[in-house]
Amino acid sequence: MLSRMKSLTLINSVESDLISCKDRGLAYGDGLFETIKILKGNPCLLAYHQERLRQGLNRLGFSQQAITTVEAHLTASIEAAIQFAINLDSACCVMKWIVTRGEGVRGYNSSGADHPTVIVSVAPYVTDLAKQKQGVRVFDCNTPLARNPFLSGLKHLNRLEQVLARSEWDGEEYAEGLMLDTAGNLIEGTMSNLFWVNAGVVYTPDLSQSGIEGTLRRFIIQSLSETGQTVQIVTLGINALKEADEVFVCNSLIGVWPVVQFLDCHWDVGSITLDIQKRLDEAEV
Amino acid sequence: MLSRMKSLTLINSVESDLISCKDRGLAYGDGLFETIKILKGNPCLLAYHQERLRQGLNRLGFSQQAITTVEAHLTASIEAAIQFAINLDSACCVMKWIVTRGEGVRGYNSSGADHPTVIVSVAPYVTDLAKQKQGVRVFDCNTPLARNPFLSGLKHLNRLEQVLARSEWDGEEYAEGLMLDTAGNLIEGTMSNLFWVNAGVVYTPDLSQSGIEGTLRRFIIQSLSETGQTVQIVTLGINALKEADEVFVCNSLIGVWPVVQFLDCHWDVGSITLDIQKRLDEAEV
Repeated sequence: MLSRMKSLTLINSVESDLISCKDRGLAYGDGLFETIKILKGNPCLLAYHQERLRQGLNRLGFSQQAITTVEAHLTASIEAAIQFAINLDSACCVMKWIVTRGEGVRGYNSSGADHPTVIVSVAPYVTDLAKQKQGVRVFDCNTPLARNPFLSGLKHLNRLEQVLARSEWDGEEYAEGLMLDTAGNLIEGTMSNLFWVNAGVVYTPDLSQSGIEGTLRRFIIQSLSETGQTVQIVTLGINALKEADEVFVCNSLIGVWPVVQFLDCHWDVGSITLDIQKRLDEAEV
Repeated sequence: MLSRMKSLTLINSVESDLISCKDRGLAYGDGLFETIKILKGNPCLLAYHQERLRQGLNRLGFSQQAITTVEAHLTASIEAAIQFAINLDSACCVMKWIVTRGEGVRGYNSSGADHPTVIVSVAPYVTDLAKQKQGVRVFDCNTPLARNPFLSGLKHLNRLEQVLARSEWDGEEYAEGLMLDTAGNLIEGTMSNLFWVNAGVVYTPDLSQSGIEGTLRRFIIQSLSETGQTVQIVTLGINALKEADEVFVCNSLIGVWPVVQFLDCHWDVGSITLDIQKRLDEAEV
């Protein structure tokens, strides 16, 4: 029976697809999400996702009681999701968590909203090996990312900037779009983090004002630093890319996509990019 | 039967409280909302709310087909909501609309998401006459509003900044909190627009980078201009308030609340503020 179903969704540990239209996640985007790859039954970078979520809950001011509730639901739901993924007989699955502050009194005031909503869903995912191998072309988005240190880094539910940026192109020519902040600094792709290499040094944008601190970005930075190669976290404009030798974008689901074209720049898939892809393969993340 | 129920919610014209957890309104805040006062069975400033919503749908790139669907659901639901409000025998009600892009494919890409979700709810509302008469104290929020002209003005569902700002104070001492943008410019309250008077001239912040263009703000600006009193739309820091003779905040639900204290500034309820309150009363908005 289970193996015939294509996806599973649990809301507060109970199988369901429906939430209250009074939920603060809908009303205000008052919550967070995580997207986790499950590879052969193993949730990749699970500890990183859990840590980012916990930091986000703290930064959004979820009460300790709410955080305890969230973690109890997650523990139960993740186990069910993994079991479902194993039964699916699909080599790769995607598990998504959405955690909201639940229902509350009317208005922005969140005091008393201590009954969070925890949504865990899982479905098959097909890795795009061609994009990993041959690379992708990247669109130059016009929509900027606003700067706000109170929200930067978090994978929160306020994602209209990404929705608008992603709507700027259609079709298959571009696999991703690059976003700058309102000050013209390189930040990230609409759904991925950005890295580039210049003269053997690896760079990635500073995310203290805008952007999402991706778990794969974190893994890559740590993995490189273990071999003595420090990634430079920088605040730079688009010219930095024009001078780069290699460029890639990444997230925990797509892995690493080499960038082969952006504006009038063209790159081959570079050796450092290939080396990072190899590390990820070996680490099975 | 109807009169015993305290509130009514229609989702796509059908009575319900539940939406799909795959709705893009929840996943990304991909939608808009409006909050409308119903006074003695009349929705106040209805045309302004409808116009702002339509402009928002266009700016978010909703398809013409989706907009047509939204407007059909709204027409049917508003009629039902007004009838419910009349039956409630409550002098004042609040009607809330939430319009989202509905369900779509996974990811930020909204192409093909042409089945919007239209939520209309109505419930009694008690006007706080004491705050209108005696004025309110306003908290100085630390959370800034980010600047992004692609989203400014819209009453969209990405409201984490307001949630964080509202969580900065508790209790009854402050009725509202004031928010600056990240550049230090006065913008608005967490749930209201801001006006002040200096030497007989009325000012309100420019909202081209941040903030929500409130319908009551628009009404006040138009109403004053009809008497030859042009409201100055300005980009100014907090010192402008310190030099003000009168300050008030407003939204379509609370009306006009005179501000009697902010930081170390104290004001009486001013004559221009009283005059504006009188106009609103007379216009029944």
